[in-house]
Amino acid sequence: MDVFQVVGPLVCTYRHPGMGNLPLRVLRDRKGKLQVAVDTIGSNPGSWVFTISGSAARLALDDKALITDLTIGGVIDFWE
Amino acid sequence: MDVFQVVGPLVCTYRHPGMGNLPLRVLRDRKGKLQVAVDTIGSNPGSWVFTISGSAARLALDDKALITDLTIGGVIDFWE
Amino acid sequence: MDVFQVVGPLVCTYRHPGMGNLPLRVLRDRKGKLQVAVDTIGSNPGSWVFTISGSAARLALDDKALITDLTIGGVIDFWE
Amino acid sequence: MDVFQVVGPLVCTYRHPGMGNLPLRVLRDRKGKLQVAVDTIGSNPGSWVFTISGSAARLALDDKALITDLTIGGVIDFWE
Amino acid sequence: MDVFQVVGPLVCTYRHPGMGNLPLRVLRDRKGKLQVAVDTIGSNPGSWVFTISGSAARLALDDKALITDLTIGGVIDFWE
Repeated sequence: MDVFQVVGPLVCTYRHPGMGNLPLRVLRDRKGKLQVAVDTIGSNPGSWVFTISGSAARLALDDKALITDLTIGGVIDFWE
Repeated sequence: MDVFQVVGPLVCTYRHPGMGNLPLRVLRDRKGKLQVAVDTIGSNPGSWVFTISGSAARLALDDKALITDLTIGGVIDFWE
Repeated sequence: MDVFQVVGPLVCTYRHPGMGNLPLRVLRDRKGKLQVAVDTIGSNPGSWVFTISGSAARLALDDKALITDLTIGGVIDFWE
Repeated sequence: MDVFQVVGPLVCTYRHPGMGNLPLRVLRDRKGKLQVAVDTIGSNPGSWVFTISGSAARLALDDKALITDLTIGGVIDFWE
Repeated sequence: MDVFQVVGPLVCTYRHPGMGNLPLRVLRDRKGKLQVAVDTIGSNPGSWVFTISGSAARLALDDKALITDLTIGGVIDFWE
């Protein structure tokens, strides 16, 4: 699982139906690489989180009709 | 999920049957890396999109006989 | 899906049974990175192709007892 | 499977329910890249381990309601 | 599928039960990156092999209770 800092929400009104109204977050890793993840636990900008990728990211959603390849797994208490 | 800018359509007449007539797009990330994705929502060249990879990309297709490993998940309203 | 140029066939007589007699191709991307893919559509050296990775690569094979993680999805009409 | 050195436990009290109380470890590869993995075998800081990624990481958990994309597969006897 | 040169066996007595007694090999790619793979076909140090990753790696094992994310798919006859 990768470690990222939350940048903020991703505004995306025009979506694939499989994305539903899932809350999306822009994340940045230590080298500046950006990723987009589904956030079902409510993270805040500036927080460090770890993410679950692949089919496990999808299993983390309650509604099995929804799709994602990256979901936030937890907010890290202390990081660096 | 990764973020890309749409370059344009990919013309590919000679395909694996599992690709059907899926509309394909050439995408470029911020570092210039190119990828090919299925576009089921109708994105335009120059738009920034985020993509769904892996088995979730395939679940985003209505016809379960079709295959892909990358599908456009949404058009980003504002990016950089 | 990634874009590669076909280098040529991969000769590999000593294989895992799950590879069967699948035709294998050596591919090279724009930066010189090499990969091996199953080719079920008959690509030629020098052609540019795009590839399907992960579980979708396996679903692209007719015989479900065979395994792969990369299958050629199509020959690109024009590339660069 | 990748090879990492165990840095130590990851303290993360605010988690997705799918993470349960799984013990998490911060891992570092030879180039300094950090990853988070589930540790079900009890590794110690400083040990070199190899990790299982993807859907196999999840199958390594006894409770199928739990999710992960990286699980420690074994402690390497000698490394470098 | 990636191409690697076999470095040698990986000695790992303390394992996750899902690894069983699977024979493990340390592999090195052309840039020096190391990976660990299950070897069910008997490769020798110095040989060039190609590997199968992801869920296909697991399907390459006879015992479905065992897990891996990388399995050697074949020994390449000639390489470079």
